[in-house]
Amino acid sequence: MTNDRVLINDAFENVKAEVEKALSSSPSIIKSYTHYLSLARGKFIRAYALLTCSLDSDNKINTDAVKLATAVELLHLATLVHDDVIDNADTRRGIDTLQKRFGKRTAVICGDYLFCLAIKKASEISDQSKFKKLDLALYMEKICLGELNQHINNNNIDLSMRQYLKIISGKTAALFEASCYGGACVGGFDNSELKKYKRFGRYLGMIFQLTDDCIDFEETKANAKKPVQSDYEQGVITLPLIYAFSQKDQLKSKAKAKRLSREEINASVASSGGLKLTRLLSQRYYKKAALIIDDLNADKSKKNILMEVLDKAFYGLQGKKT
Amino acid sequence: MTNDRVLINDAFENVKAEVEKALSSSPSIIKSYTHYLSLARGKFIRAYALLTCSLDSDNKINTDAVKLATAVELLHLATLVHDDVIDNADTRRGIDTLQKRFGKRTAVICGDYLFCLAIKKASEISDQSKFKKLDLALYMEKICLGELNQHINNNNIDLSMRQYLKIISGKTAALFEASCYGGACVGGFDNSELKKYKRFGRYLGMIFQLTDDCIDFEETKANAKKPVQSDYEQGVITLPLIYAFSQKDQLKSKAKAKRLSREEINASVASSGGLKLTRLLSQRYYKKAALIIDDLNADKSKKNILMEVLDKAFYGLQGKKT
Repeated sequence: MTNDRVLINDAFENVKAEVEKALSSSPSIIKSYTHYLSLARGKFIRAYALLTCSLDSDNKINTDAVKLATAVELLHLATLVHDDVIDNADTRRGIDTLQKRFGKRTAVICGDYLFCLAIKKASEISDQSKFKKLDLALYMEKICLGELNQHINNNNIDLSMRQYLKIISGKTAALFEASCYGGACVGGFDNSELKKYKRFGRYLGMIFQLTDDCIDFEETKANAKKPVQSDYEQGVITLPLIYAFSQKDQLKSKAKAKRLSREEINASVASSGGLKLTRLLSQRYYKKAALIIDDLNADKSKKNILMEVLDKAFYGLQGKKT
Repeated sequence: MTNDRVLINDAFENVKAEVEKALSSSPSIIKSYTHYLSLARGKFIRAYALLTCSLDSDNKINTDAVKLATAVELLHLATLVHDDVIDNADTRRGIDTLQKRFGKRTAVICGDYLFCLAIKKASEISDQSKFKKLDLALYMEKICLGELNQHINNNNIDLSMRQYLKIISGKTAALFEASCYGGACVGGFDNSELKKYKRFGRYLGMIFQLTDDCIDFEETKANAKKPVQSDYEQGVITLPLIYAFSQKDQLKSKAKAKRLSREEINASVASSGGLKLTRLLSQRYYKKAALIIDDLNADKSKKNILMEVLDKAFYGLQGKKT
């Protein structure tokens, strides 16, 4: 194992190559679908967070971390494929979704298949005791329940801030937590350190989602390099709008009557302070996460990389510091 | 572990109770759906086969076998829930399917959740080295591909016998193989014995499916205590009909023109010899499976129980010896 340790950039490239390989080397019957998925690559932010958390005292990463990061990205992809079936979504990462292109039925099976690939990859980890500590199945369960919670609350304009935070805590933060905690598990740190990475991951996920929620109202598609201005249209009510609803009674009545335009929504989340509040909440998580990094038993260079990951989640993937 | 060994009937009751517990103790958000699933219990034939294969020299069963059998039944349930989404099926085990009752989106998430529960249960096995040997993820992958293969060939009246056997080998036989092999793995047998259980499981699955295919044409719903006379209507072309098509050109033309009545189909699979051929093929598997049982390093009483399992698969769950 020690011989196979690599630097973070190499490890990151290895994860990308492993995911690519998993998608392109599937049996012929499913290859056209998995190959299609590989055309639109994600940003692998969960994998990168996992690798960063696993960095050892020589700033190296072991092969188990690469395998686990591959599993996490495949798992993430599986949830996206099923999410798109559930949300009836047309585009993802700039191209037609699998369900749009090949139908819902095929997408259900492909999602299941990716699930299996993820489990298979995770089961290849040489040190299974560390993997067992992570308890990936428990996180997968949390993610399912978060997804169900979101689905149930689709178009629910009466959603409270508290309910919303619970949804994203399951839907997004759980996989970030699993990634950071999992990275630390295969990194071999002791229990008191593991707890810190776990909390760090949860905060990172919350920040990532809250930033994403703001971007949906603020950015154009070209700027964001992803579909924006679409949450509300898909029935996903996020924090900035929930706050705007709480401040402007008229807005809610209009939404109920389905007479709310996108322009009106964008203006309202800004003028009501919904975006500001969301950023403020995100900032609280940011400060807590930064304190955890500071408190880690790690050297300056690892702490710097973790801060970079945190900044990316907070300022958006464009890295824009506003 | 040794203290916890129980007799097969107790172990079987334990599995049923564990599945029930898993379905009824889920978080409140998903409970109404999983509870609904528990209303129509399956026959747990895969669990029973697994437990039987795990029987030790004292004819006892250990707790790992109970856990694995529970995981297999949850996994089976997960595949059924997604199958029903894919096949747009209305009834399952005598009641509305989850997708019919609560919608496709909910059913996709519930299937995913059951998948997670299965993995979680399997990860509770105390001897993970034995579990690793089983490689459940590989079997899950096979089952997905079998399902996809069936979906792709839905309504394909040109399906060959060879293609059909490949489909059921993935769809049904893979999980039976995983069950019997898994039972033997947690039973702690040596590699040469494990190979036998693996082959036994595959044959058992083929027999089970081929019998099921015949029952669909021969039985009434009341007799079979399950939906019959429905494969063709759902676009599932099975062996008896494939053979009938190969013998009667007219039949195929009629099917192409969608002018084939259920009465005509039932009569044709009988008169063409399609049912007879399917039974004959099943009988070949039966003989091979019986030889494996005979060859096992097990006592008479275990061999008898395995023969009972084999008979049930061959003659149908009613146990009718025709």
